[in-house]
Amino acid sequence: MSEFFKVVAPDQAFQVLKKHMPATVGAEMVDTAGALGRVTAEEITSPEDLPAFARSTMDGYSVRAQDTFGASEGMPAYLEVVGEVPMGKAAEVSLATGQAAVAYTGGMLAGSADAVVMVERTQKVDERTIEVLRPVAPGENVVQSGEDVRRGDPVLPKGQVIRPQDIGGALALGLTTLKVSRKPRVAIVSTGDELVAPHQRPGPGQIRDINTYTISGLVSSCGGLPIHVGRVEDDFEAQKSVAAEALDMGDIVVFSAGSSVSSRDLTASVFDSLGDPGVLAHGIAIKPGKPTVMGMADGKPLIGLPGNPVSAMVVFDITVRPAIYHLSGCVRPPTLPTTTATLTRDIPSQAGREDYVQVRLSEQDGTLEAEPIFGKSNLIYTLVRADGVVRVPLEKGGIYAGEEVSVRVY
Amino acid sequence: MSEFFKVVAPDQAFQVLKKHMPATVGAEMVDTAGALGRVTAEEITSPEDLPAFARSTMDGYSVRAQDTFGASEGMPAYLEVVGEVPMGKAAEVSLATGQAAVAYTGGMLAGSADAVVMVERTQKVDERTIEVLRPVAPGENVVQSGEDVRRGDPVLPKGQVIRPQDIGGALALGLTTLKVSRKPRVAIVSTGDELVAPHQRPGPGQIRDINTYTISGLVSSCGGLPIHVGRVEDDFEAQKSVAAEALDMGDIVVFSAGSSVSSRDLTASVFDSLGDPGVLAHGIAIKPGKPTVMGMADGKPLIGLPGNPVSAMVVFDITVRPAIYHLSGCVRPPTLPTTTATLTRDIPSQAGREDYVQVRLSEQDGTLEAEPIFGKSNLIYTLVRADGVVRVPLEKGGIYAGEEVSVRVY
Repeated sequence: MSEFFKVVAPDQAFQVLKKHMPATVGAEMVDTAGALGRVTAEEITSPEDLPAFARSTMDGYSVRAQDTFGASEGMPAYLEVVGEVPMGKAAEVSLATGQAAVAYTGGMLAGSADAVVMVERTQKVDERTIEVLRPVAPGENVVQSGEDVRRGDPVLPKGQVIRPQDIGGALALGLTTLKVSRKPRVAIVSTGDELVAPHQRPGPGQIRDINTYTISGLVSSCGGLPIHVGRVEDDFEAQKSVAAEALDMGDIVVFSAGSSVSSRDLTASVFDSLGDPGVLAHGIAIKPGKPTVMGMADGKPLIGLPGNPVSAMVVFDITVRPAIYHLSGCVRPPTLPTTTATLTRDIPSQAGREDYVQVRLSEQDGTLEAEPIFGKSNLIYTLVRADGVVRVPLEKGGIYAGEEVSVRVY
Repeated sequence: MSEFFKVVAPDQAFQVLKKHMPATVGAEMVDTAGALGRVTAEEITSPEDLPAFARSTMDGYSVRAQDTFGASEGMPAYLEVVGEVPMGKAAEVSLATGQAAVAYTGGMLAGSADAVVMVERTQKVDERTIEVLRPVAPGENVVQSGEDVRRGDPVLPKGQVIRPQDIGGALALGLTTLKVSRKPRVAIVSTGDELVAPHQRPGPGQIRDINTYTISGLVSSCGGLPIHVGRVEDDFEAQKSVAAEALDMGDIVVFSAGSSVSSRDLTASVFDSLGDPGVLAHGIAIKPGKPTVMGMADGKPLIGLPGNPVSAMVVFDITVRPAIYHLSGCVRPPTLPTTTATLTRDIPSQAGREDYVQVRLSEQDGTLEAEPIFGKSNLIYTLVRADGVVRVPLEKGGIYAGEEVSVRVY
């Protein structure tokens, strides 16, 4: 039981695991169109120039720029309109000196043209002739071939979480599949003699297992794949066997432990039985969430979350979430939404411990206020009623009413 | 073409549509466990008390509080241990005066007990006797029946985006299905003679259709259901027929129009042909994104996004996104992630126009800097290279280098 005393600082919690973890969980090919939120498993470079041809950025006329030099309203340049380049078609018209062709936004330039004059800067003289009222420089109102991306350019770095625009960027180059990290599988085991399934009516002394589902939601929301391994009573052999199955199925094993000392000790014994190095830390200097067990077996993190739902969510964020991002090969994890608000009541804390306090947000006379919810951490509705959470750093003794705080918004 | 001049202010863009829109798109029942991100379609009230029985919050002994009154280290109260209440079991032991029973965190209290003494505040005298070193008040270390939620209490408001903890909260009460808003269907039509599918090799003058997929990603990310209706050339009859299909399939119709004036006019004509009131606005005072067409038919918003990818994304956020939230019945839309950064270069703007400038974020000497990307709005890689976007409000003439800006992070 020496590990009982290995309490780690909150910012060290994930580091303890990371040291023993593999870099990623491997890759797979997916359709680009369905790759939102996935993480690139390699640097993507462009197979071609984009755009593939010089395109007009305006409605007007493609011209040879030098034919417009010196043009003004008083002394316009007269150009002969020799045709048009329809949208989506190759330019079949080519310009000689003094000639122009109708151009559309996004369309190809006429042969020999090097600029486009906006239609607003021209006047029609007759069916075949326009006046150009201002000069254009070569390249004006034109997107050059390769101006967006050149063949061979890096377009998406390795480890990027794919956003809607990245899907567009890849498809623009014809990259209809992408190599992404496999979604890290998080095998969830709920332990406790008191648990029944949510659809069951609990008998006296029993409660419904909810942590499995809350944790699943959290896993999905950070790009992992939750796997429900099962509910298991507080019995060493039974838990060991389910844990071995979880270790086989998951890249990360999460135990939602009971909250009694004996059930936490049981989690630690089960983790130790799974392989080396076994339990690495027993406790995090955080409130709520201290009774957390962390370990490692087979290169896979084993995380025993506290049974209290509020504690479980706080600890998830500093252990399981970073582990999922790490195994996804995610270089810059998504920014979580935050807001600034004025605290309405003092939050007492102890130096040397990081406190997380749930808050409700409300607007009072145009100011956003954060009202602490000092609910017990074993009440799920403390979380349901919360709009976000405020962190009191390790070194602070508390935060006073009236102070501005940063709230992580749920 | 009078509607050509109906340019609306950015904050009015969605209001123009909202006036004509139905409240929501209707509801459906879903499994609570899979309801993450869905929006509740009714207020949920609790069918039962939670917890259903008084639970211990500590490992220790259930007691009758009055038996501990006056206890101290010097003068402990002696109690007879008459049994235990195992986890997950009904209390089969009941206390008489001067008696205690072993209690576990989360377990039921013994009959007649009204408080729990922490094990740390006791000393074992022999197998049947403990000393209690400090008094407990009635209710101490106990979660009372109904303390989390009482039967009939509202637990989730109507219009709430379901979070992981809300899933836990509902399941704790045995609510295994929830009534949620149907996902608003967004029917996407890409128009333009120049478009080919992403898997095709574009011929001269052609480009791959990417807006369909970028927009789909955006729709999914705010809880809508994207439907690809198709790509269609710049022909009134062809577009009208596809638009009618889109109106039939979608709750919102999004046209990704070409960028030439004629293709925008075509979009407006097609919208006008679909029913009353037809086109409501033609242009938003925003850069990029001015050439936006908005209309309404059959009580469904018709939104013609600019063809330029950067413009399309900016306009999506102030038109399609709020329309999806509105039709979901979403009362408090999710907070988008933002950060504060120092601008590295001046952003010029015009008063009377809202500017959106893409930025790259980087940390320099511990300070987060936002570097404007003044890329052309018709280049998708302007968006791919961006980490976020800065808004220059309507009334401001620009933002200077060195100013702190709020960046919406992608």
